Amino acid sequence: MVQQERAARTRQDLVRAAAEVFAQSGFTMASISTISKKAGVSTGALHFHFASKQALARAVEDEAAAVVRAIAGPAPDGGPHPLQRLIDATHALMGRLDQDVMVRAGFGLGSALPRREDAVDLRGVWQDWVEEVLRDAEREGVLAEGVSAADASIAVVAATVGFELLGAHDRTWTSAATLVRFWELLLPRLAAADGLGRLVSGGTPDTVPDRV
Amino acid sequence: MVQQERAARTRQDLVRAAAEVFAQSGFTMASISTISKKAGVSTGALHFHFASKQALARAVEDEAAAVVRAIAGPAPDGGPHPLQRLIDATHALMGRLDQDVMVRAGFGLGSALPRREDAVDLRGVWQDWVEEVLRDAEREGVLAEGVSAADASIAVVAATVGFELLGAHDRTWTSAATLVRFWELLLPRLAAADGLGRLVSGGTPDTVPDRV
Repeated sequence: MVQQERAARTRQDLVRAAAEVFAQSGFTMASISTISKKAGVSTGALHFHFASKQALARAVEDEAAAVVRAIAGPAPDGGPHPLQRLIDATHALMGRLDQDVMVRAGFGLGSALPRREDAVDLRGVWQDWVEEVLRDAEREGVLAEGVSAADASIAVVAATVGFELLGAHDRTWTSAATLVRFWELLLPRLAAADGLGRLVSGGTPDTVPDRV
Repeated sequence: MVQQERAARTRQDLVRAAAEVFAQSGFTMASISTISKKAGVSTGALHFHFASKQALARAVEDEAAAVVRAIAGPAPDGGPHPLQRLIDATHALMGRLDQDVMVRAGFGLGSALPRREDAVDLRGVWQDWVEEVLRDAEREGVLAEGVSAADASIAVVAATVGFELLGAHDRTWTSAATLVRFWELLLPRLAAADGLGRLVSGGTPDTVPDRV
């Protein structure tokens, strides 16, 4: 059991070290020896856990995908306004991109060239969810008149992907302040007037997760 | 003279071939021999024109930067509504990203890891111009009440960078139709009501470049 725990910890150290090296140097230039050194293990131990650099990249992406799926999850019954869920999810995602190298590296791997066949399309996961929650908003009649879920998706997906990309070099782009300004610009155009006042562009505080 | 022309053409063939290889495989994996083969010249001839792969990347970026600067140029005297200039420039830029591998590769090199020290920051050039034209709009009083140039810049820069990145794998994102939907969503929030009706979200037709 102790040995299993140690193995699990070593594996986790390797995935984290790989994320740091991928985020810094990109997939192609990342070397197995740099990753194992950073994790404080031998390359032999690395190869016990991961057959290849591809397998390490995939592990980083899988961890990042789990974060994205936790943030962009199914709506709870009687849950908040769909647009509030969307606002909250953008704050959660940008916060993780800003603070968690695993998530940052996972997204970064998605634009690395040449493309890996087994790469996880994190931006696609995010895009699908944004489209879904905006369709919920449309169905519930909380979008402004004349605004379709599809049109809103274009703006929100493109802008959030832009924040993610620009934030890799300048953290201002993934800051809460930037996101608040974005939502304060967009919401009056997006939300039906009678629900607009209830929307919190800074996101629902974590301590009151179901506040609408 | 004929020899100079031939040399200039060879150089241009090499830059174009490099753009194609960078766009496909990324900077790190691109090989000098693949580029010279694609250009139909010997590696010796390549090295006569370019000392290194870095120099080729820089040439691609310089050509892309020239395109961006031509699109995002200074305002003509008595020129069109600043927001129309912005709309037109986004259409021109997305059109080039869609159709011109040189521009696509130039932007792509900007997110390649590890970062090259001499890389041209094309997204930065674009961002500076968007901010400038939106400050013009603010100064001319054509932004909607309560909307600042800085807030509008966040949304427009992030969304256009998102279109560029997503368009590298799915051309729908750089299509005119996507851009029209984006502007039709955003303009009613961005533009002062009395100028809104004059704005053409599809861009001013090229044949009437100064139409307002």
